[in-house]
Amino acid sequence: MLTSETVSLFQDIVGSDNVILSTTGRLVYSYDATPNFQAMPDAVIAPRNTQEISQIVKVCSKHKIPIIPRGSGTNLAAGTIPSQGGIVLLFKNMNDILEIDEENLTVSLQPGVITLDMIKAVEKKGLFYPPDPSSMKISTIGGNINENSGGLRGLKYGVTRDYVLALEAVLPNGDIFRTGGKLAKDVAGYDLTRLLVGSEGTLAVITEATLKLVPMPATKKTLLALYQNMEAAAKTVSAIIASKIIPATLEFLDRPTLVAVEDFAKIGLPTDVEAVLLIEQDGSTENVMNDIKIIEQICKDEEAVSVQIAATETEALALTTARRAALSALARLKPTTILEDATVPRSEIAKMVKAINEIAEKHQVPIATFGHAGDGNLHPTCTTDARDHEEMERVEAAFEDIFAKAIELGGTITGEHGVGMMKAPYLEWKIGSEGIAIMKAIKHSFDPDNIMNPDKIFAKETRKRVVVT
Amino acid sequence: MLTSETVSLFQDIVGSDNVILSTTGRLVYSYDATPNFQAMPDAVIAPRNTQEISQIVKVCSKHKIPIIPRGSGTNLAAGTIPSQGGIVLLFKNMNDILEIDEENLTVSLQPGVITLDMIKAVEKKGLFYPPDPSSMKISTIGGNINENSGGLRGLKYGVTRDYVLALEAVLPNGDIFRTGGKLAKDVAGYDLTRLLVGSEGTLAVITEATLKLVPMPATKKTLLALYQNMEAAAKTVSAIIASKIIPATLEFLDRPTLVAVEDFAKIGLPTDVEAVLLIEQDGSTENVMNDIKIIEQICKDEEAVSVQIAATETEALALTTARRAALSALARLKPTTILEDATVPRSEIAKMVKAINEIAEKHQVPIATFGHAGDGNLHPTCTTDARDHEEMERVEAAFEDIFAKAIELGGTITGEHGVGMMKAPYLEWKIGSEGIAIMKAIKHSFDPDNIMNPDKIFAKETRKRVVVT
Repeated sequence: MLTSETVSLFQDIVGSDNVILSTTGRLVYSYDATPNFQAMPDAVIAPRNTQEISQIVKVCSKHKIPIIPRGSGTNLAAGTIPSQGGIVLLFKNMNDILEIDEENLTVSLQPGVITLDMIKAVEKKGLFYPPDPSSMKISTIGGNINENSGGLRGLKYGVTRDYVLALEAVLPNGDIFRTGGKLAKDVAGYDLTRLLVGSEGTLAVITEATLKLVPMPATKKTLLALYQNMEAAAKTVSAIIASKIIPATLEFLDRPTLVAVEDFAKIGLPTDVEAVLLIEQDGSTENVMNDIKIIEQICKDEEAVSVQIAATETEALALTTARRAALSALARLKPTTILEDATVPRSEIAKMVKAINEIAEKHQVPIATFGHAGDGNLHPTCTTDARDHEEMERVEAAFEDIFAKAIELGGTITGEHGVGMMKAPYLEWKIGSEGIAIMKAIKHSFDPDNIMNPDKIFAKETRKRVVVT
Repeated sequence: MLTSETVSLFQDIVGSDNVILSTTGRLVYSYDATPNFQAMPDAVIAPRNTQEISQIVKVCSKHKIPIIPRGSGTNLAAGTIPSQGGIVLLFKNMNDILEIDEENLTVSLQPGVITLDMIKAVEKKGLFYPPDPSSMKISTIGGNINENSGGLRGLKYGVTRDYVLALEAVLPNGDIFRTGGKLAKDVAGYDLTRLLVGSEGTLAVITEATLKLVPMPATKKTLLALYQNMEAAAKTVSAIIASKIIPATLEFLDRPTLVAVEDFAKIGLPTDVEAVLLIEQDGSTENVMNDIKIIEQICKDEEAVSVQIAATETEALALTTARRAALSALARLKPTTILEDATVPRSEIAKMVKAINEIAEKHQVPIATFGHAGDGNLHPTCTTDARDHEEMERVEAAFEDIFAKAIELGGTITGEHGVGMMKAPYLEWKIGSEGIAIMKAIKHSFDPDNIMNPDKIFAKETRKRVVVT
């Protein structure tokens, strides 16, 4: 609980209009897109600039008040739950694109900018920001940076981390500092920029960023290949890469996902096949035509039952929009949707999908799987009902098995969603006790009082993540 | 000094043949490629595997013995000087390429592998490792990772950091840990992989790495453009980027560098122009031909006095070899060569080169400048004589001015060489006292006893780097 003196201090810093104290107002920020996690913040504060954030953080530091920086709350790992109360920081007043620098190919902006708004702004100048998390229509850049968001184009273009050149941030003691610059090369000390990217708000509050842009590809082509077995689809993925082609996207949907997406989007997707690959290539017109022709042949050679190249941009857009709607489509089936992102080396996809299906069967839970086949980042998705505690125990057990299998295949527990509270109990499986010890030491070196987004990344006692509230 | 007991322990671990104790033997490892820094190690040890390194580190931890991991000692920032004695770790017995994985496009290897050997090995499989530090014929991958080495292809392809997917390392307490995987996406906690890349051996001993590869570009073309003034060359660089073309390399040489290189390499380079741009594009044949045509026209529009496209691969190779020989060529002129890597945003190159010339004039020291114009990474190079203390004072003052100017223009004190001992006194100019405080806290969290490559990155009292021995 905040004292009235502390509340007054916050109101003096940001103005009364930018402090939410009402129960209904705070309730909205008690959860994020992750099912089954909820906790009330003591206040929700929307600062207007970096100086105000520095002042707020100094108050929090003095009184040991937890700070939870929050973008649009679209994260799927319980990364923005105020589990110990404290204040949720909103960036709705810090949502300006500050500069698009066409000479250095950079965009500088505040954390509250919506990802897609920035992408559209730079595209008007013929520039391209490749990371495209599925939530990009509502997610913020600040959220993307804190979570190191991925997306469909990760295989060819990398993830958010690969595009962050410089950051301004406020440390847990209120100090403001800057990393990097409009520089392709900078080795002045440890790479603090990339240490902050993906740190899930546990080290500092990011207050400004400069991102790298690339020239917009001249053209793009989309291809849909249908398969009657998963192995053939996986072999296609390997064969494409072996042919030295890196497609812009190389997405996979299994039959349960297809059925849900078609029922939701009604664009004429087949629902009688076992797997679909959605493949996009971008670049110069010659390269794209050439690559798509080779990819088409590979799909046929690897026993695709049908290969269809989108004839128009509208048709292509419908296909990618359908893929992006997978989560929404699946979410309609049952009250609770748990979407995971166990990730394996590309060569292990077929094994992993097979294992997921066996695990679902073993625990008698419905799991649909889709995801980024090109980079091994899969989204096994369970539709369930959080009120059914017995079923939730089985869901939990199934995901435990899935994480263990991903690690066994040389993979990771999370490819793009982050650890948050949801996967904290499993982090040690991936990085070992030595890794946990180092990460805790780093956390302590930034934030000795543990006020920055507590309970994220590092687990408490239990291994169970299903919090029955 | 090591006790005879400690020496025996080391000999037991790695075998007597792998411990050098003689004065002449140790002398070889008392310096690296940086002028004016020298200090004797107490022993030089060449372990044969990770377990041996772990055992060595445990001995060092117990007795507080400094550990200096060393590749080929080609670094230019006094990054491998045993300034407090201790042991130099060599990786000559750990130089195996462990696996080239054509399905996941990765290479796994030990730190002692020579960069060019690895590049040649993967090229045989049609794969490409883009980072190409000028020292790649003798540098090791372990050294490249510790320094986050850059190279000529940084503009289009990024630097070493962008290709490190996974590491195995030994912590200062002897624990072995692993980060990352053969994964394009992995957000399981803080990005320890990239924290170790560029950490200059101050956090842990890197014992194995997995690097990302990309398909080999189908073709490559090289173009040489001559200018009678620097501004025209800089405007060309900006115009190429503004035309949405990112060349594979975009190198700049000024007249003093040209004269030295031509005198050394004798390939018929012009020595009567003020600046040369050496531009390479790679990719599909159509794209390369198309880009080179546009680049040629831009050079002409921006008042290049001559534009020449290399007709044959041999001719192209001669040009790039000449550029890579710049340091060796300049080093012949005087007993001491100090090559720096102040780096600015691409848009500021003309201003920076002009400032470097004015600073050289002001301090009456000869400075030749060449470097990576495309990514703003310049190499102002002073040929001097370390025995002339009065001149060295002026050289030092000139580089101080150069670093200050780079920072003023939004740049950094080091783009690709690292901080080492040489630039430690200037690091605070770039990252501020807050940045230094955080980096020191990170260092302390890994290495509380400061045994890992002490005196690098973090400065002692003095700002002067010219150590008169």
